Amino acid sequence: MERTLIGNLQSKVGERVLVQGSVSVRRDQGKMVFFDFRDRSGSVQGVVLPKSDAIETAKEVRAEYVVSVEGTVNKRPEKNVNAGVQNGDIELEIHTLEVLSKAETPFELGSELNLDTYLDHLPFTLRAERSKNIFKVQATIAEAFREAMRGRDFTEFQSPLLVGGDAEGGAAAFKVDYYYDQKAFLATSPQLYKQMMAGVLERVFTVTKIFRGEKHATTRHLSEAVCMDFEMAFIKDHTEVMETLEHVMKHIVAKVIEKHGDVLQKMGAEAPLVPEKFPVLKLREAQEILGVSTSEPDLEPEHERALWEWAKKEHNSDFVFVTHFPLSKRPFYTYEDEADKGYTKYFDLLFRGLEINSGGQRVHNYENLVERIKAKGLDPEKFSFYLEAFKTGMPPHGGCSTGLERMTARLLNLPNVKEATLFPRDLNRIDSLLSTDEK
Amino acid sequence: MERTLIGNLQSKVGERVLVQGSVSVRRDQGKMVFFDFRDRSGSVQGVVLPKSDAIETAKEVRAEYVVSVEGTVNKRPEKNVNAGVQNGDIELEIHTLEVLSKAETPFELGSELNLDTYLDHLPFTLRAERSKNIFKVQATIAEAFREAMRGRDFTEFQSPLLVGGDAEGGAAAFKVDYYYDQKAFLATSPQLYKQMMAGVLERVFTVTKIFRGEKHATTRHLSEAVCMDFEMAFIKDHTEVMETLEHVMKHIVAKVIEKHGDVLQKMGAEAPLVPEKFPVLKLREAQEILGVSTSEPDLEPEHERALWEWAKKEHNSDFVFVTHFPLSKRPFYTYEDEADKGYTKYFDLLFRGLEINSGGQRVHNYENLVERIKAKGLDPEKFSFYLEAFKTGMPPHGGCSTGLERMTARLLNLPNVKEATLFPRDLNRIDSLLSTDEK
Repeated sequence: MERTLIGNLQSKVGERVLVQGSVSVRRDQGKMVFFDFRDRSGSVQGVVLPKSDAIETAKEVRAEYVVSVEGTVNKRPEKNVNAGVQNGDIELEIHTLEVLSKAETPFELGSELNLDTYLDHLPFTLRAERSKNIFKVQATIAEAFREAMRGRDFTEFQSPLLVGGDAEGGAAAFKVDYYYDQKAFLATSPQLYKQMMAGVLERVFTVTKIFRGEKHATTRHLSEAVCMDFEMAFIKDHTEVMETLEHVMKHIVAKVIEKHGDVLQKMGAEAPLVPEKFPVLKLREAQEILGVSTSEPDLEPEHERALWEWAKKEHNSDFVFVTHFPLSKRPFYTYEDEADKGYTKYFDLLFRGLEINSGGQRVHNYENLVERIKAKGLDPEKFSFYLEAFKTGMPPHGGCSTGLERMTARLLNLPNVKEATLFPRDLNRIDSLLSTDEK
Repeated sequence: MERTLIGNLQSKVGERVLVQGSVSVRRDQGKMVFFDFRDRSGSVQGVVLPKSDAIETAKEVRAEYVVSVEGTVNKRPEKNVNAGVQNGDIELEIHTLEVLSKAETPFELGSELNLDTYLDHLPFTLRAERSKNIFKVQATIAEAFREAMRGRDFTEFQSPLLVGGDAEGGAAAFKVDYYYDQKAFLATSPQLYKQMMAGVLERVFTVTKIFRGEKHATTRHLSEAVCMDFEMAFIKDHTEVMETLEHVMKHIVAKVIEKHGDVLQKMGAEAPLVPEKFPVLKLREAQEILGVSTSEPDLEPEHERALWEWAKKEHNSDFVFVTHFPLSKRPFYTYEDEADKGYTKYFDLLFRGLEINSGGQRVHNYENLVERIKAKGLDPEKFSFYLEAFKTGMPPHGGCSTGLERMTARLLNLPNVKEATLFPRDLNRIDSLLSTDEK
């Protein structure tokens, strides 16, 4: 018999079906045994009647056993209907019950746990409804990002993660033992590669890993994270990048609401406030609104949260752009605004008080770029591979980078970005599984 | 004026347009200067007439300069039509010409180069038509893989790349300096994580990086590669995985032909032979056909190529499955075929004589799995995180892994897998760009 998904049982009333899934709950009522089963499509109640051949096995089954069941789909009598619950009006009368896997669990699935216990038992705790929903939403965010990009003629590329030298002397990069005592490093961003690729394909995007060895133990830092980056050539300035990003963000939000409106509700997350046009402030304007000194080079986390309050109140928006950070504090490739000397065509996008994206226009002139590298005390020789893209003719370009875990966390109102990461790595946590070569 | 893409010029005959792109060729004919321009959408010829304000600048422009041009789109007289060439029947009469970036090139773009020179100059050489086409096809392969997976209710997940311990003592894993003198490793496969995720979401896939430190210098090995993996629960046996993979492969091939039929032709690559049903041979059957000993545990590259010839001749197929490799040579999680003791429910998929995919059914029973780990001389303690998925109830499951670069190379008839890798890393090559933090 072919397996029927639990989500399709409604169309099988009166029929005998094969259902396979996990036992969520077992209630032994002496003569009869009741089960709640789940599979990837949903849940249903099953009952084993006293005379069923399955009754002996049913008494041995426990929560989280994986089972294969044959039964008849029955309508429940009116008085037993469980209104508002999936399949609350039907019941599976079980005829045969086969145990595919036994289970022994450290605690009940879906228990309230502290974060460390939750993370220690991920292979089990991820099976809870709430966790599954988080990562289904995350998959939709990445899919919607790609969809929006392709709709605007961007091509996806695979950015390298092993890089040969520490051209910038970045303390945050993890070192790798490469061949023959060489040292390699893990990429902290696809930045320089996506710029080179903008010179090749004009419009590119990548969804890729980044690695940061900074010793932060906060609710928003990870050692290994996913970023969704794009880069586009022949722009007038950074505002074209912002316009594209705004389009992408609107598409992501719309898609998540369309596919996961029920999940947002269950998790107590509001649908994001998305105005016609995201508000834009220069850093100094934001600082004036917040009453902090305009000589500060960046915003502190509490300022970002205060700016969210302002954006909600003034613009009915969960999003706000902050632009024109001081040149002295930005990387060498950041474009200076000719009309606002000392400040940059650079932006952060804050979503619900958290910076989830940064980007801007880049320097595309070869001589200027070499000067900027030198001005940072770096050696242009070490950037010769990157610089070849500019020496051989680079169009004006810009782009930006969105943190997938941060975006997921803010969208679902999760207090810690680790909850939006399947197997998070940080200062104190890394699990010890070297995956096996299948080849 | 808004930019018009070169691919849209046909609808602008008689109009004044703004075109931005790179100069492919410049021909100075004394009084007049001709250009071939290209942007991401195609190529067109431009001409600067003697009296044009642009004539002085035009004489200074060289190949690969990035320019912004205003001109009028003219129909060419019948006798000057360049038949069979994109925009061969129109010409851009240039009125203004602005240089956005100058260029100095090491050689002509698209020159025949040896592989090392090609790779040394990737930021420039990738701009050649052939290279751009390879990576556009690669993007389509990954997109079609995701599309086919989602169509069968699979959810994408992000597999971790930093792993904490070397549970299997794999010599091929790169070591990473993690925090506080800890050692971490780079994932050699998402295998164990995708199995855990099959226990969570039933059907999962990931497109992710893998890292292999084996000292191979061949046309088919890379230190860093992309794999497209999936894993599915509640299977009867490995044949359900094979059926799913076959569906995915057919979808990828159809999509590549639909979107890039012209590229296949230009690159001299035939459309793949895709039969109704891929041929399937047990390893021993394949060995008998090839006249090699059935006691060998695997096929050599020359056997894989010979099997391609067989599959083409006997089944009109570029694909062939080989199953039932000996248990003793396979990883601990490989499922033994009860009906063929000593052999496994494991398969390789060969495409045009190259193994591009491996997979099979996995052991899902906790006790069996612990036994199998011990039998390999490994310590189950080190696998306790992974084993929790099995202890807490794991459905029967299986999956497989496709190499993106290998698939691209065989589809486009590229002799070396490095040509199907944007920035390939191998024994002798890694470029020295530590990407910069944008945040």
